[in-house]
Amino acid sequence: METPSPASRLAVPAGLAAATAVLTIDLDAIAGNWRAAAACLPPGARAAGVIKADAYGCGARRVLPALAQAGCRDFFVALIDEALAVRDLLPPGGRLFVLSGPPPGAEALMRESGLIPVLNSLEQIHAWARAAREAGTGPAPAAWHVDTGMTRLGLDLGELADLMAAPLPEGLALPVLLMSHLACADDPGHPLTDRQVETFARAHALLPGVPTSLGASSGIFRGPATQGDLVRPGALLYGLNPTPEKPSPVRPVVRLEAKILQGRLLDAPHPVGYGATVTLPAHRRLATVGVGYADGYPRAAGNRGLGVLAGTVVPVVGRISMDLITLDVTEVPPAQVHPGALVELLGPTFDADALAGCAGTIGYEILTGLGRRCLRVYLGGPPDTQEGP
Amino acid sequence: METPSPASRLAVPAGLAAATAVLTIDLDAIAGNWRAAAACLPPGARAAGVIKADAYGCGARRVLPALAQAGCRDFFVALIDEALAVRDLLPPGGRLFVLSGPPPGAEALMRESGLIPVLNSLEQIHAWARAAREAGTGPAPAAWHVDTGMTRLGLDLGELADLMAAPLPEGLALPVLLMSHLACADDPGHPLTDRQVETFARAHALLPGVPTSLGASSGIFRGPATQGDLVRPGALLYGLNPTPEKPSPVRPVVRLEAKILQGRLLDAPHPVGYGATVTLPAHRRLATVGVGYADGYPRAAGNRGLGVLAGTVVPVVGRISMDLITLDVTEVPPAQVHPGALVELLGPTFDADALAGCAGTIGYEILTGLGRRCLRVYLGGPPDTQEGP
Repeated sequence: METPSPASRLAVPAGLAAATAVLTIDLDAIAGNWRAAAACLPPGARAAGVIKADAYGCGARRVLPALAQAGCRDFFVALIDEALAVRDLLPPGGRLFVLSGPPPGAEALMRESGLIPVLNSLEQIHAWARAAREAGTGPAPAAWHVDTGMTRLGLDLGELADLMAAPLPEGLALPVLLMSHLACADDPGHPLTDRQVETFARAHALLPGVPTSLGASSGIFRGPATQGDLVRPGALLYGLNPTPEKPSPVRPVVRLEAKILQGRLLDAPHPVGYGATVTLPAHRRLATVGVGYADGYPRAAGNRGLGVLAGTVVPVVGRISMDLITLDVTEVPPAQVHPGALVELLGPTFDADALAGCAGTIGYEILTGLGRRCLRVYLGGPPDTQEGP
Repeated sequence: METPSPASRLAVPAGLAAATAVLTIDLDAIAGNWRAAAACLPPGARAAGVIKADAYGCGARRVLPALAQAGCRDFFVALIDEALAVRDLLPPGGRLFVLSGPPPGAEALMRESGLIPVLNSLEQIHAWARAAREAGTGPAPAAWHVDTGMTRLGLDLGELADLMAAPLPEGLALPVLLMSHLACADDPGHPLTDRQVETFARAHALLPGVPTSLGASSGIFRGPATQGDLVRPGALLYGLNPTPEKPSPVRPVVRLEAKILQGRLLDAPHPVGYGATVTLPAHRRLATVGVGYADGYPRAAGNRGLGVLAGTVVPVVGRISMDLITLDVTEVPPAQVHPGALVELLGPTFDADALAGCAGTIGYEILTGLGRRCLRVYLGGPPDTQEGP
């Protein structure tokens, strides 16, 4: 019998016998990574926590309290629904920012829910002011987003200048945060970053004294110019390397293990999997495990991904199926290849960044796609507070 | 104001104002596609419904009743947890098969839950018999899976022959279904299919009279040799073309629409999105919408995907972000490019198969990844029965 990995040995839930896959998320590692980001900052600057996309797939309702316990007070989500799903967990004095701002007609809901919109356009700014006039209780806090070269969301510098050249419309206050987003911070030599920093400085000159927010995970590790008063770490919290050109300054967070459903010793050459993309010779030993692309393991990693079984690295063979992956486990002692043994598909040896490299994407897409059907096990962090509001 | 698409006009839920994306699923189209598959079969053969992976992302708790209403009685899921989540919705006389069979230790749970395992290996067959002996109430129904050339799950022909050469172990009955799975049925000329059909016939000769199941979506449309007594349509139910070399015999099911968050007319050339992978010239008009790869829109479709706005096809520009996509909407009348307007990202014009083609994958992976955060709207089908057991 394979020795269970430390993650699954520490917390074996009731459903493990029925499950074919286990996703283990280390909340203490997330908190530690947040502290590592906060430790890079000059005095006076603070780190927020980005918990959009269900905390990059790690579970926003578990991650928010873990970050709050570490000292985080400012949280960012992408959508109103994401904010409403975690709002009850905010610590005292906590702030919850919604990056996409209110879609038309959702201003009153955001305002009444105490959410802080990131206002990305003149339309959003004017709609937010109008909602304040309609409510009759004065301006509500908002962040303003200025586009400095990513051309995605945000006010142009010219729009910001025009807005500030006249008295603010009734119902609008100065923002509680002036933010922008870097397009190429993961590439340390990219010339666009310097241009974005310069443009952001010109924007800030129009709103002196307003707190700034520029750096996300990569920007935090590029020094003060790409940080701002409040940095927004996301990817690094979840173990993705914010500085791909160097060893990672953060700890791994996620482990995905899949149960062997069936082992097989080939008696002759056999094609493997959909499309018969590969034929293995006789005497190879295969194991098929219960994870597939419907669990977020990318189909593009067929014939390329790697697992770890009993300490041995084992390659994926054939295409990834919806619910199944086959691995060549010939190098593993046969006694370890039995139904129920767990193959590690993501973990310290082969992490989300590495799997992304095999699949032609980035670790962010791997994490946000993971684990819809897997049994989830959390390590560390505050106790689970169940399903929410 | 843009005219809403028919899908979103028919059923506008309360949460639409706050949502940035809407996923519309046509349950009547799913039922119609099931009838189209059933209509291909010779007298005596029947069609099951494959609803694994949450019915390919379409929602198993809505799809199962819609298929049952159309006459479907046999359902396939991949995992025990998937079966337990829909078991209460089975119609009278309905059967629920679990394709991965019981992991070690889960036999009693499957048996007590009335689920029918697909037994894929001698280990699973002997464990199922042992569970029957322990229960003391006789054999419980099971399907047996024979591997005919995919080398993924299933008994070898030799293992099956050995099993049938002796009296069955106590606790084991003949299977209620003998099944196999085709590796290359989507490719009409592939020689492996004929070999699999032959091998399956030899397996069936060992268990004469036992009902068979061979064809899934593609096999159904390749004629009687690749069908069997019970076919297992999955992909085709959800609108994926089972015969990629020909126009699709099934109707579209899924529509994904994303709300414009911000429009922008470029005053000068601008790089767009992460990595500044593309620079657009002045006077192009862009729109950024609230869907990204965290919603299952594949990152590999950056600079390649297509949307439809106000009847005009609009290309994706730049990389796909986690929560956002930018499109070039220059060809659309400017009055139609306003915050809140819906861009169709998947639908009859550009469907899951087409998006998969842009992203180097298959429609199956697109569907199973979709819509974790989107507002869901169902068209047709029986009423919603809420959250389940």
